[in-house]
Amino acid sequence: MLKARCRVWLERNGRPVFGDGRAELLARIDRAGSLRKAAAEMKMSYRHAWAHLARMEEGLGKKLLARRAGGPGGGGSTLTSTGRGLLEKYRRFRTKLDAYLVRLEKTL
Amino acid sequence: MLKARCRVWLERNGRPVFGDGRAELLARIDRAGSLRKAAAEMKMSYRHAWAHLARMEEGLGKKLLARRAGGPGGGGSTLTSTGRGLLEKYRRFRTKLDAYLVRLEKTL
Repeated sequence: MLKARCRVWLERNGRPVFGDGRAELLARIDRAGSLRKAAAEMKMSYRHAWAHLARMEEGLGKKLLARRAGGPGGGGSTLTSTGRGLLEKYRRFRTKLDAYLVRLEKTL
Repeated sequence: MLKARCRVWLERNGRPVFGDGRAELLARIDRAGSLRKAAAEMKMSYRHAWAHLARMEEGLGKKLLARRAGGPGGGGSTLTSTGRGLLEKYRRFRTKLDAYLVRLEKTL
């Protein structure tokens, strides 16, 4: 019984801009409302998470993160509608690809 | 415009057994009738190519290569029908996956 495995990523102008890890990072920022918390959850340094964001935004030419002004609960980060849209499109893409791989696997 | 990229491989019992590089190796053995020539074409040492074959055969539990007895033209290697069948199945799988990725890409 053979299993098909696949590592997938998205490129723009020949540069990798998005993939599973970055999708997880965006999803966690969206949930936690904070890049710092999302990075900690993924055991990633803040600096490293920030660099991922910067590379994504630069590669895509779009803002994915919006700063929220501080207040009683402190500031934080939230996804822009572009960021949320990208995450949703990627998830649908990934789900369809996984389902197709399972179907293809049966032909092996 | 986003492009979807994918590195794919096949596993059996959690071990990687096949992928694009190994498919190319088998295809070249089939064409050249020789593991040594196929390895040279891929700028791979004979030892390295042989190790790939051994790992594939061990992982799959099947013989992929058959030795041809020497003669006027010398000996050589040829694919077993299992080896040729695996290569054909993998190619169909890869072609279908690539076509599906192109379709999915349009949804990004």
